[in-house]
Amino acid sequence: MFPNFHAVIMAGGSGTRLWPLSRRRRPKHLLALLESATLFQGTVARLQGMFPAERVWVVTVRDQADALQAQAPTIPAENYLPEPAPRGTASVVGLAAVALQKRDPQAVMAVLPSDHYIRNVARFHRLLEAAYLLAQEGFLVTLGITPTYPATGYGYIQRGEPLGVYAGLEAYRVLRFKEKPDQATAEAMLAQGGHSWNSGMFVWRVDAILAEIRRQMPDLAAALDEIAAVWGTPQQEAVLSRVWPTLRTETVDYGVMEGAQQVAVIPAEGLGWSDVGSWESLFDLLEADAEGNILRGGVHVDVDAHNNLVFVQDGHQEKLVAVLGVENMVIVETEDALLVCPREQSQRVKEIVKVLQAKGLENYL
Amino acid sequence: MFPNFHAVIMAGGSGTRLWPLSRRRRPKHLLALLESATLFQGTVARLQGMFPAERVWVVTVRDQADALQAQAPTIPAENYLPEPAPRGTASVVGLAAVALQKRDPQAVMAVLPSDHYIRNVARFHRLLEAAYLLAQEGFLVTLGITPTYPATGYGYIQRGEPLGVYAGLEAYRVLRFKEKPDQATAEAMLAQGGHSWNSGMFVWRVDAILAEIRRQMPDLAAALDEIAAVWGTPQQEAVLSRVWPTLRTETVDYGVMEGAQQVAVIPAEGLGWSDVGSWESLFDLLEADAEGNILRGGVHVDVDAHNNLVFVQDGHQEKLVAVLGVENMVIVETEDALLVCPREQSQRVKEIVKVLQAKGLENYL
Repeated sequence: MFPNFHAVIMAGGSGTRLWPLSRRRRPKHLLALLESATLFQGTVARLQGMFPAERVWVVTVRDQADALQAQAPTIPAENYLPEPAPRGTASVVGLAAVALQKRDPQAVMAVLPSDHYIRNVARFHRLLEAAYLLAQEGFLVTLGITPTYPATGYGYIQRGEPLGVYAGLEAYRVLRFKEKPDQATAEAMLAQGGHSWNSGMFVWRVDAILAEIRRQMPDLAAALDEIAAVWGTPQQEAVLSRVWPTLRTETVDYGVMEGAQQVAVIPAEGLGWSDVGSWESLFDLLEADAEGNILRGGVHVDVDAHNNLVFVQDGHQEKLVAVLGVENMVIVETEDALLVCPREQSQRVKEIVKVLQAKGLENYL
Repeated sequence: MFPNFHAVIMAGGSGTRLWPLSRRRRPKHLLALLESATLFQGTVARLQGMFPAERVWVVTVRDQADALQAQAPTIPAENYLPEPAPRGTASVVGLAAVALQKRDPQAVMAVLPSDHYIRNVARFHRLLEAAYLLAQEGFLVTLGITPTYPATGYGYIQRGEPLGVYAGLEAYRVLRFKEKPDQATAEAMLAQGGHSWNSGMFVWRVDAILAEIRRQMPDLAAALDEIAAVWGTPQQEAVLSRVWPTLRTETVDYGVMEGAQQVAVIPAEGLGWSDVGSWESLFDLLEADAEGNILRGGVHVDVDAHNNLVFVQDGHQEKLVAVLGVENMVIVETEDALLVCPREQSQRVKEIVKVLQAKGLENYL
């Protein structure tokens, strides 16, 4: 549709928020949580009809590159951009911008997390179209999610003046970014209106984002210049490996967006978006049986059990999970670990991860 | 101590009350639930100092005989009495009485379940001594357990007139046996006093029990006569295999004790007795950590978790069980099954077993 529009999937994460299923070596985007496809494959599939495969890029860390290529072989090998090591999303965005600019100096890039879920693909495409049009004017565009509850786990974006209607969607100048709020602040923002969740999805021209990086993060810009000078030459790997470890780890939100000059937000509604950020989030995404139980994998017997999520890792289809007299519980069974916790406390699995680290139980991380 | 005193361990059960650990082919008495020894081995060990091995007998079903002999090799092979098939404790008692009478017509037999736990062995021996002395007078003696709470899972025995003091313990004629009561009846009996739980442990002379079987269960007596006629001859197996399947399944409690003429009870206190009849019963028998959690087998991480029982089957020591924000829960992990249920509902695992039967999931039984 737009020949200079590229999608950049950020697939380098190693989150443990869905522990014990997600692990260091088995990050969330490589898991088939919601369907037979992994979240990464779902992210790639959602781009069909908007981006041909040669304009889909994947930034990842080196030890995930092979697994990702195996999952999405239609994306050209040269479009996989492996970071030598994770250095935050600011560096990821800079590296991708450098690579895209070499391919197409007029490129507009959509930055997309690899581990989110979006149910309404048509609406997602419309949103990207609107963001593209706005980005063409020089804006750094954030895709905002209209809040449905006073979440404390997301950053918020406050709208400023209207910028007009793009592809049928209203766009606004960003008044300010707000970090993850406490409960009272979240409730106040929801009551006040005019706020969106920061989805981590962005659209901008590569020259625009590189100019903002140069203005606000001169060290990163200098490193990117060094990399750009040898990009596509035999020296590329050596320079990347030398320069990358010297970078300061920073997110694009704090490093660039909060201080950027021309920032817009397009509030998205009806997207059916989830960051799949905790076991509890799956209650909204997976279908429950008549008793409210969500049963994935394994063999199940439920007696007087309601509204539980029971997840058995692939490859253990013979495992019987019997739940009796239990409600609102998350039960996750993997090869080497079992998690039992109440649904409303599932975001606390990070505390388990900390204990495992403190005890040196690396095998389970 | 008493050269005509024999112990008969009843080890034919196949209970599923500790499912998923106990199974048809892995009955409770063959499990090492409380220590490194199995409950059966514990039962055998408790007899040391009171019964030499040649006066310890084991009645079991044929497909458990090998496993039991392997666990208690000091007991002579000829003291293992395999039933062709389970026919209830009345038949078990009759068979054992026939075998003992052949060995010693003056024998006094103690009938002991194989899957109970008794902490205070010295007191247990004293109780057996008292029961032996009373049995020598012709009484069928039941060992009663002084109730500590209004249990609905046990039968009760109401005391009648005092019979005197035996080995320092008071004995009473039995006024009546009462089936497992409802909650209100149990509370009333506890308030009234004079009631003991029926432990399933009995002591009697073989001639006395055989006389009562003849009086009350003439069909069983006739079958036992047939068996006795060929006991120790080459025809023993053939007759047993022919006669046994014709027997009516009956318990010794209903079939003999309730209608018997000379029945006594010795109330036992301080025995530290448990029938280990449910997962909840283990809370009284196993030591908890500072948070009240009982953790057996596996690797454990507990965050804000209290008063749980987490049991990982032997052979899965690498399995990590992480429990977060959970209290009073029973979590049992075996090779092929996982149980999660609240402590106070653990006696309901039989409902899970019923579902498994109804669904034809025989593998898990």
